[in-house]
Amino acid sequence: MAVPDGAVRVALLGCGVVGTEVARLLLTQGDDLAARVGARLELVGIAVRDASVPRDPVVDPALLTTDAEDLVTRADVVVEVMGGIEPARGLLLRAIASGAAVVTANKALLGADGPTLYAAADAAGVDVYFEAAVAGAIPLVRPVRESLAGDRVTRVLGIVNGTTNYVLDQMTTTGLDLDQAVKQAQELGYAEANPTADVEGYDAAAKAAILASLAFHTRVAVDDVHREGILAVTAEDVAWAQRTGHVIKLLAIAELARPAAADEGTAEGRGGEDAGRRGVVVRVHPALVPLDHPLAGVHGAFNAVFVEAESAGELMFYGRGAGGAPTASAVLGDVVTVARHRVTGGKGPVESSYAELPVHGVGEARTRYQVLLRVEDRPGVLAQVAQAFAARGVSIEAVRQGVAAAGDDGAQADILVVTHQARDAALSATVADIAGLPVVRSVMSVLRVEGA
Amino acid sequence: MAVPDGAVRVALLGCGVVGTEVARLLLTQGDDLAARVGARLELVGIAVRDASVPRDPVVDPALLTTDAEDLVTRADVVVEVMGGIEPARGLLLRAIASGAAVVTANKALLGADGPTLYAAADAAGVDVYFEAAVAGAIPLVRPVRESLAGDRVTRVLGIVNGTTNYVLDQMTTTGLDLDQAVKQAQELGYAEANPTADVEGYDAAAKAAILASLAFHTRVAVDDVHREGILAVTAEDVAWAQRTGHVIKLLAIAELARPAAADEGTAEGRGGEDAGRRGVVVRVHPALVPLDHPLAGVHGAFNAVFVEAESAGELMFYGRGAGGAPTASAVLGDVVTVARHRVTGGKGPVESSYAELPVHGVGEARTRYQVLLRVEDRPGVLAQVAQAFAARGVSIEAVRQGVAAAGDDGAQADILVVTHQARDAALSATVADIAGLPVVRSVMSVLRVEGA
Repeated sequence: MAVPDGAVRVALLGCGVVGTEVARLLLTQGDDLAARVGARLELVGIAVRDASVPRDPVVDPALLTTDAEDLVTRADVVVEVMGGIEPARGLLLRAIASGAAVVTANKALLGADGPTLYAAADAAGVDVYFEAAVAGAIPLVRPVRESLAGDRVTRVLGIVNGTTNYVLDQMTTTGLDLDQAVKQAQELGYAEANPTADVEGYDAAAKAAILASLAFHTRVAVDDVHREGILAVTAEDVAWAQRTGHVIKLLAIAELARPAAADEGTAEGRGGEDAGRRGVVVRVHPALVPLDHPLAGVHGAFNAVFVEAESAGELMFYGRGAGGAPTASAVLGDVVTVARHRVTGGKGPVESSYAELPVHGVGEARTRYQVLLRVEDRPGVLAQVAQAFAARGVSIEAVRQGVAAAGDDGAQADILVVTHQARDAALSATVADIAGLPVVRSVMSVLRVEGA
Repeated sequence: MAVPDGAVRVALLGCGVVGTEVARLLLTQGDDLAARVGARLELVGIAVRDASVPRDPVVDPALLTTDAEDLVTRADVVVEVMGGIEPARGLLLRAIASGAAVVTANKALLGADGPTLYAAADAAGVDVYFEAAVAGAIPLVRPVRESLAGDRVTRVLGIVNGTTNYVLDQMTTTGLDLDQAVKQAQELGYAEANPTADVEGYDAAAKAAILASLAFHTRVAVDDVHREGILAVTAEDVAWAQRTGHVIKLLAIAELARPAAADEGTAEGRGGEDAGRRGVVVRVHPALVPLDHPLAGVHGAFNAVFVEAESAGELMFYGRGAGGAPTASAVLGDVVTVARHRVTGGKGPVESSYAELPVHGVGEARTRYQVLLRVEDRPGVLAQVAQAFAARGVSIEAVRQGVAAAGDDGAQADILVVTHQARDAALSATVADIAGLPVVRSVMSVLRVEGA
C-alpha cells in the first residue's frame, strides 16, 4: 500500500464543473497539498467521454483520456466525479481491485449500491471516502464515521436538498404557492428545468440512504427509503405552520425504530416478543419544524444535518450542500486523507505549524465598531464626532441620534455610530480621540460587529 | 507501530467526570468498539493521584495506579483527561517517546503549548488527536484538520464557552444585568463559584489558540490571543443590540489579517511594501452578531463554530461544548481512530454494515402528526374526530377550531389536530378512518412534526 517514492498518483474520472475545480486545485495548490500529505499529488490523467470538447484552460489536454479502464489501474488514488451508476461503479470496483484508494462524490451510486463498494474496499484493504456525496461541502461523513465512532447515533435529521429548501423558504417568506416558487427557483438557477429529482425527493432519498448506512452501520439502499416530495405542500400549509410556530422543511430522517411493543399502550403490544425488534427507519418527507429548532434557521440553498447521539447529545453540521467549489473542497479533503494514509502507513494528519504565518496583534484585525456616545445636545456635535472618524480614515455606515434625559450640566443626547470595516487599531484610536472631545460627555459602549 | 496481536492497550490518565465516563464506555461497549477498530480495546490502567478515593462502581480498583510514568510506557494509546499543564505535558511527551498514540482533552495544555506536542508526535510518527479539547462533543478538530485539508480556511468565528453564552442569553431574554445573570448561572450550575476563567475569556482564549493553530497551520499560543471578557457588557448594551437587530455573543475569532496597506485608503498605505504581510490575528471579545447569522441562534450552554473557507464557503458546527458524556464521546471517537490506524497500518474507518439492523418501513417510525380537517359545523363533530384518534390509540396533544367560510352544503369549520408521538402506521390509519367519517368534508393537510 505504501507509495514507492515520490508522488502519489491521482486519477480523475469526470471533468464537469466539480472535476474541473478538483483539477484546478490539484494543479494550482501543489505546494500546500504536498505539505499536508507529506508527498506531492501528481494528477496522472482525467477520464472524459469526449476529449475534443472545449475545456477550462487549467485542464491540460495532454491529461485527458477516454480510456478510463486503463487510467484507474495507473493510480494510487482514483477520484470519481462523473456521476451516475455505470460506468462509475465498474470503474471504482476495478480501481479497488487494482489496489487504489477511492474518493467519490457520487450520491446516486452510493445511495443505490454503496455497501458493495464499501465491502470491496474493506476486502482489498483500501480506503473509500465520500465526503462530497452527502451535503456537499459540509464535513459530515467524516464526523459520523470517525468522531462519533465511540458513540451511538440514535437519529439523523437532515435538510439535504438545497432546491427544495429554497422553494419552501420562498413560500414561507413571500406567500407564493408551490408552482410559483418552483418557477422562481428555476429562473434563478436554483432548480433545474426538470425539477423532479429535487421536488419529488429522489435526491434527498439517495442521501438519506447513505447517511443511514453510515450512522447505523447497516445496509440501507435508496429503495428502503420512504419518500414523499414537496408537491403536496400548499400555501395554506405554510400559513398554518407559521400560525403554530413552525416552518415546513423537507427532511431526510434516519432513526432507530423502537419496538412496536412499546407503542400506543395497547395491552397486547406491551412487553411482547416484539420488544427486541430494534431496527432502522429511513424516510424523506416535508415536516413541521418548531421555529426554535436549529434546523428551522437553515435558509435558502444551505444544507444542514442534525445528529442525535447517546453520549454526544445534539449536534448540527451546516453549510453549502452543492456547487462546484464547495464540492471540490470536500473531494480534495478526502484526497489528502487517503493520500496521507498511503504515505504514512497509518497516521493521522500532520500538525499545524508548517505554514508559520506571522501572528499579528488585534490592531491588524479588520472589523466594524458600534460606538454609543453621550454628548452635549447642541448643533455641530455630530459634525465634530464625524470629523474624528474621518481623521483616522474610518468610514461611518450609520448614525442614530436620540435625546437622553438631561444631565446635571444641561441637555444631552445619545449618538450611536456604526462604522464600515476598518483596521482595529484605527478604530480604537478614533474612540480615544472622541473620548477627548469636549462635547462628548462619555463613551458609553464600544462593541465590535462580526458576521455581517 | 502495528499492534502485536490481539488487543490495543489503552491507558487512561485521570478519572474525574470525563475519565470515568471514558472508562465506562471502554468497559461496557467493548463489542461495538472492537467492530469499529478491528481489534479489542483493552483498558490496561487508570492513573490517579489517590487510589483510595471512592469511585464509580464501573471503575475496577485493580485498574488504578498512581504510577502514571510507568503506565504510559505500557500502552499503545494513552488517553489524557487529567487537565492542567503539568504533569500532563511530561506524561504525554513520555508516551509519545515510547511510541504510543496520544488522545487528549486538555485545552489548557494545548492552548499553552500544543505545538510542542504536535512536533514530538510528528517526529515520533505517532498520532495526537484532541477532538474534545475544543468545543467538547462537537466534531470540529477532525473536520478542520482533515475535511478542509484541500481548502484554505480564511476565518473562524466561535461560540466556545457555554457559561458566557448562557449568561449573555439570559441578559437578552430577561433583561437581567451581568451580575444577576452570572449569579443565576452559578445557582443553576452553569457557572463555577469562581467564574473568572469563563467571564474573563481565558477559557475561550485557550480554545481560540488551538483553533487558530489548526486552521492556519501556524503556532499560536494563548498569549498571542487578544482577550476581552464579558464583564463590560451592560444591560443597556444588550437593549441597544436588540434595537439594532443584533445579539451580543462572546466570540473567539481567528482570521487571516489583510495587509495594513489595503486599509483606510490613506495614500501612503496603498500598495506599499507592507502589502504582502499576510498573517493571523486571534481575538476573544464580546461582539454584536446580526440576528440572521447562524451564530445568533446558538442558545444556552450550546457551542458553535462558524468556519469560512475559500472553496467550501460558510460552514457551521454546533453542539454541546462541555459535560462528561459529550466530552467522553469525542475522546472515544479519537481512541477508535488512532487504534484503527495501529491495527490497519494506514486505512480509514471500516464501513457500514457490520451492525446489519433490520430496516423497517415508515409505519414503524414514531412521530407526531398535524392534521387539518374541514368538517360540518355542528355539535358532536369534534367528539367523533377525537374518538377516531382514540380508537387507534393515538393521543391528541392539542386541537384548534376555527370557523371556515360556509360551503355549498352548509356551515363548516376547520379543525387542526396535533397528536402526541405514535407509530406512523397508527397515525396514517387514523387519518384514513377520519377521511371516511360522514361529518368530515375533507382532510386538507397531513404533516408530520419533527424536532420537537
